Amino acid sequence: MFKTNSYFDDKVISIAFENQEGKATVGVMAPGEYTFGTTSVEFMTVVSGEMHVQLPGSDDWKNYKPFETFKVEAEKSFNVKVTTDTSYRCIYK
Amino acid sequence: MFKTNSYFDDKVISIAFENQEGKATVGVMAPGEYTFGTTSVEFMTVVSGEMHVQLPGSDDWKNYKPFETFKVEAEKSFNVKVTTDTSYRCIYK
Repeated sequence: MFKTNSYFDDKVISIAFENQEGKATVGVMAPGEYTFGTTSVEFMTVVSGEMHVQLPGSDDWKNYKPFETFKVEAEKSFNVKVTTDTSYRCIYK
Repeated sequence: MFKTNSYFDDKVISIAFENQEGKATVGVMAPGEYTFGTTSVEFMTVVSGEMHVQLPGSDDWKNYKPFETFKVEAEKSFNVKVTTDTSYRCIYK
């Protein structure tokens, strides 16, 4: 019923779902550095752990803790470093 | 790397992970009614959607919205109704 996807040699796994907030995923990242590309606008919220994020066009890295959210525009790429298993919710707009 | 589990004919799917908060899962529930049993104390937090929850020993149902948490003691069962795809984080203590 729910589709799971894995990326980066299974170091990132997500489950897709959809409700009144729109299309979304929840997932988990193992420690590592990842570059993600967006097709739509994404609102990414840390659920557990911590993400170090370099947003598109930024030289700076910023930390996001549980229930903190960042937005990425469509057709961009952004970089994420995590040093502990980190779960997230992503809503696609 | 991450273990996924499914329950209730794949209407509930979760991904297990572990970090400084302890053992945890994130998962998604399809609309339905479910009875879950605990082995350890569980701190369940709604991530997206909404849960209607009847805690052990309670006659009442209470609603939990995103980022709201309820606690269930070990070796208990509790009832959940969801009317939309609902994601959650569960931390086991």
